[in-house]
Amino acid sequence: MNALLFDHRLSLATDYPRPTARAGESLIRILQSGICNTDLELMRGYMAFSGVLGHEFVGIVEVSDEAALIGARVVGEINAWCGECPTCAAGNRSHCPHRTTLGIDRRDGCHADYTRLPNHNLLPVPEGVSNDEAVFVEPLAAACEILEQIQIAPTDRVVVIGDGKLGLLVAQVLALTGCDLQVIGRHAEKLAILSARGIRTEVVARGAESQLPDGSVDIVVECTGNAQGFATARRLVRPRGTIVLKSTYHGDLAINMSMIVVDEIRLLGSRCGPFAPALRLLAQKRVDVTPLIAARYPLTDGVAAMEHAAQRGTLKVLLDGVAL
Amino acid sequence: MNALLFDHRLSLATDYPRPTARAGESLIRILQSGICNTDLELMRGYMAFSGVLGHEFVGIVEVSDEAALIGARVVGEINAWCGECPTCAAGNRSHCPHRTTLGIDRRDGCHADYTRLPNHNLLPVPEGVSNDEAVFVEPLAAACEILEQIQIAPTDRVVVIGDGKLGLLVAQVLALTGCDLQVIGRHAEKLAILSARGIRTEVVARGAESQLPDGSVDIVVECTGNAQGFATARRLVRPRGTIVLKSTYHGDLAINMSMIVVDEIRLLGSRCGPFAPALRLLAQKRVDVTPLIAARYPLTDGVAAMEHAAQRGTLKVLLDGVAL
Repeated sequence: MNALLFDHRLSLATDYPRPTARAGESLIRILQSGICNTDLELMRGYMAFSGVLGHEFVGIVEVSDEAALIGARVVGEINAWCGECPTCAAGNRSHCPHRTTLGIDRRDGCHADYTRLPNHNLLPVPEGVSNDEAVFVEPLAAACEILEQIQIAPTDRVVVIGDGKLGLLVAQVLALTGCDLQVIGRHAEKLAILSARGIRTEVVARGAESQLPDGSVDIVVECTGNAQGFATARRLVRPRGTIVLKSTYHGDLAINMSMIVVDEIRLLGSRCGPFAPALRLLAQKRVDVTPLIAARYPLTDGVAAMEHAAQRGTLKVLLDGVAL
Repeated sequence: MNALLFDHRLSLATDYPRPTARAGESLIRILQSGICNTDLELMRGYMAFSGVLGHEFVGIVEVSDEAALIGARVVGEINAWCGECPTCAAGNRSHCPHRTTLGIDRRDGCHADYTRLPNHNLLPVPEGVSNDEAVFVEPLAAACEILEQIQIAPTDRVVVIGDGKLGLLVAQVLALTGCDLQVIGRHAEKLAILSARGIRTEVVARGAESQLPDGSVDIVVECTGNAQGFATARRLVRPRGTIVLKSTYHGDLAINMSMIVVDEIRLLGSRCGPFAPALRLLAQKRVDVTPLIAARYPLTDGVAAMEHAAQRGTLKVLLDGVAL
């Protein structure tokens, strides 16, 4: 099959072996997959990954030992957990120490004609949700994860830093809470996607700073993954406020931890989230992901698609599967 | 009056001007004060402080415009807040941006014959609480602050790192929750104070590591204020677990923030706490602070007392006021 393969370098394999579904797994034909910044990080050495890239997809189950799934259009949670360890038993299955992760950690991903996942990772996509929408379920679930972790009240002043793909999804999800929300980014044209939905935005040029006063924000969600974004978050958050860290960072971050103590700040890492509510939000049209699509390529042009996605400021690049 | 003064260097002033209680304030004659590590940090430049050191005390109100306080034996919350700003209105008075802090930030402290504080900062000490106990209320309140910030359940596996003054108080307070507690420290003789109270301890030599497995702890409370302590905390905490930061750190701490994100760790700064429950715990004899007393000096030997307190591994050094 075709597969976008990373093994020290990126290439399109045309004769990669089609995966075989094991017991309790399904084989999924990929209709569409999405390129995530994590794919680009993996190419820079993150997780020391080699294999088929890709963890955002919508596809059709072709083979499964769960009969009801065969023929279903599905999305899939990316962490394949063991289900038997204390971490799984405690309800933290996405943190299972024995997990493999689709296209990220010791499991081939979905930028390919086919992928395989455990049956219990798969969720059928409601009819009213298009492929273009469904392919966003994974990052939208990651945005929902914030609301699984902390309560955001209508009186909370909340700032999202970053107008990349994740920032735009996080902002739309947090807006649902009725909180006092503002999104800070560098790109007027991206922030316009949010303004169109009534979300307050502020364009801050590179090297400039937000007009918001120091310590004026209850909850800051940092979606840039760079030290400047963290510095802004630290400046804006009030004493006893919360900084949610939604992106990974290159290398270590140097932090004045004494002032975190003095100001009693809460820092909270946030990763993968629940798929079911993300699908529900799409079905109910409560978030709009399609304006985030920047380009689409056939899987067979996957290398060019990755180059496009790597250009600074590019939103979502999609890979279309081969129509059978 | 006598006062232990820091102004680039430490000295005992014998003719320092006695403070005058302003409107809404009381003048307190100091019976006893305690030397905190923060005093030592201030001498290394923390907060760019100059003035009278000291923020832990028990004393007698001599002058006050609140008649009921006159003659009362009191302890005092160290942050003098404005009471009028949005931070105060939101109930975060210890974070008031206009605050001064006793012996720490633009307010003379209590290693002196007299100090002054707002009346509403003062709490009468119950008869059954000795001066030796009352002088520990401030750090004991800081230990209680953890339980103001997070819930600790009886099923939680909790580790306190550090067997210094703060670690020993934190451990006694957290033990009240019935959680599964272990304290890690370098000094068998200090940990014995906790073992005597039925708290599980582990002596870990310098350069060695705790026997606890990676990721085995729900909540780690870091009371060392050094990078090694933080590294141990990071190693021990489970995914989705909490690290409470109870000490300040020299300089910046370099943190692999990506793994904080991946493991969805919560980092929580924790500083000053509520005095009333700390006093209550002392009155009810539910914690025992007196084994922490390492030495006592008259205030007039304050310079020697500070040198003693600065010796590695010294527990609480007390300064006795002049009996009148």
